[in-house]
Amino acid sequence: MSLHTVDPSVDALVARAVAAGEIWAAASAADRVTVLGAVADALDAAGGELVPIALRETHLTEARLTGELKRTTFQLRLLARSAAAGEHLDVRIDHADPDWPMGAPRPDLRRTAVPLGPVIVFAASNFPFAFSVAGGDTASALAAGCPVLVKAHGGHPDLSDATARVVLEALEKAGAPDGLFALVHDAAQARAVLTHPDIKAGAFTGSIPAGRTLFDIAQNRAEPIPFYGELGSVNPVFVTERAAAARAAEIVDGFVTSFTLGAGQFCTKPGVLLAPEGSRITALLREAVLPEAVPLLNDRITEGHQHVREQLRAKAGVDVLTAGTSPQSPAPTVLVAGVEEVLGDLGGLLTECFGPTALVVTYRDEEQLLEVARRIDGQLTATLVAEADDEIAPRLAGLLARKAGRILWNQWPTGVSVTHAQQHGGPYPATTAPGTTSVGTAALARFVRAVAWQGFPQHLLPRELRDSTTTGVVRRIDGRITGEE
Amino acid sequence: MSLHTVDPSVDALVARAVAAGEIWAAASAADRVTVLGAVADALDAAGGELVPIALRETHLTEARLTGELKRTTFQLRLLARSAAAGEHLDVRIDHADPDWPMGAPRPDLRRTAVPLGPVIVFAASNFPFAFSVAGGDTASALAAGCPVLVKAHGGHPDLSDATARVVLEALEKAGAPDGLFALVHDAAQARAVLTHPDIKAGAFTGSIPAGRTLFDIAQNRAEPIPFYGELGSVNPVFVTERAAAARAAEIVDGFVTSFTLGAGQFCTKPGVLLAPEGSRITALLREAVLPEAVPLLNDRITEGHQHVREQLRAKAGVDVLTAGTSPQSPAPTVLVAGVEEVLGDLGGLLTECFGPTALVVTYRDEEQLLEVARRIDGQLTATLVAEADDEIAPRLAGLLARKAGRILWNQWPTGVSVTHAQQHGGPYPATTAPGTTSVGTAALARFVRAVAWQGFPQHLLPRELRDSTTTGVVRRIDGRITGEE
Repeated sequence: MSLHTVDPSVDALVARAVAAGEIWAAASAADRVTVLGAVADALDAAGGELVPIALRETHLTEARLTGELKRTTFQLRLLARSAAAGEHLDVRIDHADPDWPMGAPRPDLRRTAVPLGPVIVFAASNFPFAFSVAGGDTASALAAGCPVLVKAHGGHPDLSDATARVVLEALEKAGAPDGLFALVHDAAQARAVLTHPDIKAGAFTGSIPAGRTLFDIAQNRAEPIPFYGELGSVNPVFVTERAAAARAAEIVDGFVTSFTLGAGQFCTKPGVLLAPEGSRITALLREAVLPEAVPLLNDRITEGHQHVREQLRAKAGVDVLTAGTSPQSPAPTVLVAGVEEVLGDLGGLLTECFGPTALVVTYRDEEQLLEVARRIDGQLTATLVAEADDEIAPRLAGLLARKAGRILWNQWPTGVSVTHAQQHGGPYPATTAPGTTSVGTAALARFVRAVAWQGFPQHLLPRELRDSTTTGVVRRIDGRITGEE
Repeated sequence: MSLHTVDPSVDALVARAVAAGEIWAAASAADRVTVLGAVADALDAAGGELVPIALRETHLTEARLTGELKRTTFQLRLLARSAAAGEHLDVRIDHADPDWPMGAPRPDLRRTAVPLGPVIVFAASNFPFAFSVAGGDTASALAAGCPVLVKAHGGHPDLSDATARVVLEALEKAGAPDGLFALVHDAAQARAVLTHPDIKAGAFTGSIPAGRTLFDIAQNRAEPIPFYGELGSVNPVFVTERAAAARAAEIVDGFVTSFTLGAGQFCTKPGVLLAPEGSRITALLREAVLPEAVPLLNDRITEGHQHVREQLRAKAGVDVLTAGTSPQSPAPTVLVAGVEEVLGDLGGLLTECFGPTALVVTYRDEEQLLEVARRIDGQLTATLVAEADDEIAPRLAGLLARKAGRILWNQWPTGVSVTHAQQHGGPYPATTAPGTTSVGTAALARFVRAVAWQGFPQHLLPRELRDSTTTGVVRRIDGRITGEE
């Protein structure tokens, strides 16, 4: 149980995970629900211990941290239940068919999914509960049947240890196999884990350079493995002329609230807002009272924010539209630039500035919205602020769906609900695995792999592939889904 | 229409694909079914022209080629129909819920999948129809809404041109957008396509070294893209003691038929058979009359087969169990080695020998089957030849499911049926994308990416996300699947 005295050898760590994984993969879905429910209960019960540590290490507010812990335990339970319902298994049963029109008889084929094996999760700094030690990646890997080694984020080491202690105690009490979960702090050790042949997937939330480095390591292994990196995004907001004319004040309020939420330390922060040149939006923003400055997560993030903000301000054509003043913490800041400048230096200007800074881009012609949409990099989110009968809306929505994992209509991208239909992903560099999500129940699918059983007798099939009609799992039988059984 | 006079510039080729892709992605699923059905009809009608070219270029038999063409057109139609039914979309609708127990209201979220964009397909040599120009990768990418550039395999250039001509003419007649499909022959040009920023995925069937090289190129791009490589496999067959005692003759017959089918030029050829030492299996194999030698696909494959076979024969502990003689073509050959030798040099002895050669591995103790299963690389298939009440069967099946994409029970792995439940994939090096399949309707999912729409009005949603109950697509609504609507 003592986290810093486990055998430091990577081989030993991974060997324990492999052994635990065999037992965990063979456990019934109901047993996994019970075990992960016990972990969730233990974390809820430990809030009084954990939240104060998080407060000290992250500077986030108590209300936020308490809410985030609730989200985290909700997520653990929802993922375990969805896994038990087989949501991620895509079960298919094709009975033998001597007359299959392919030209050869069809054998009896039954397909479900099996856990990938041990996973390494690199925790994020900005959600010390929901994207950290017991966060979404850990929860979806465990729920899918995989053991997890977590690399703690250096921004909250004590909270990571305390959380891991709660998780380990709950797992032990609930009878989970020893080695199912472990925490490492050392970056070199974590990289060694990532290259270990018995590690079968990686997950990461963080910056583009760090994520790309780890992705490259994972792909250059003798056996490349899936690496689910959730990296960076500016989450552009496209405001049409008519929306700006009709609702400037409401848009400005929503924008300021969203980009300063959590001091702008969200991967879904709307970092760029495109608005018509000369509209009331820029005028209102210039006069807007921005929220008070609050300390960022840690010194490294504070310095990073300042560095990127200064880089942006130094660009030709970029001005400060409005900025608070604060002697100690980075004050919320809105920069402004014309769309021509932005189109001339997309990579330089549409760059993530993690913290309370955003860029307003003024356009002269709505067609320029389409051009930006066509040329931007992959995004976690893209938002359309428009009127329902705006002529440009269908074309713009169509383009944005090709660039982002989630597109929003007159709503703000911060706040990523944990649901069945959530998609928190997107084309590179938003993520390293464009088809996948790290939030919501579809996140489970990242940690399993399809397998077909051909011609097997009933007793040797996984439960969900047997002829029984009471599996509780949705199945596609002979090509047709007939609903939950 | 003239294949060798298209603008050779890669930019122009890709630009045409991008333009076509916008139209094709926006086309209705029904329109895609019509267009791909027209392609299938045209290929069926062109059999009299195509099969003779294939005969000349591949040395495969007319019966085999005719059957393969039928499989190919069946596959095109099945994939188009399955795509229209939304099998690959994993549609999820979560209605807004102010009381969502996460601790924050749930917005209206609706998730479906969109085509990735232009795809490059590297054709295989051994299935000149089913895994080539109009084969499974092309069919699944087109059916999923993506334009396709095919790199022709050098083994059948004339057939590739003739097939492409039929496809292009049918596409044009059916009103498909210009540029939706194109063929390239030059390897350097194909690699340039693979690195083009507007190419969004790659698919490949072939050898481990060639596939790994292309995979590495795809992952090292500024924007890494999914690369679906189906590489190599020895497809081990595990024969238990009791099965060997009960059915030696039947097992030997099945094995010889399967490993020599198509002159052993199948990626699912059972290249390794594990049988008890001293069983009738080796005795029967020694006396077996092997099929006559037939020419392989081409000289390069003939040389490759001979080279790997000689390498295997030269290993300490490897003997020839039986071999035909043939002055011209490589004769079917069965090698034999003890399991200790194999466990001492797994990489050297369990290596794919593409062509009519297989290795029998004799074991002394059934526990050694488990050890081999635990230690083998990823496989497309693994086969269990056992009695229903064999004690070792459940443990062995469990291990094999962790190593292979498809596991078989008392059947032979050659012959990969195109069905809903098929899984033709497996952990590396069987494939570069362990969760995916290149055969069957689940192959469609490789070419789409999930997107969530948040808070959109009905008229701006993709058809399958609207409130209508007559979409014809299976949907998970508020967490529950209620069957086809």
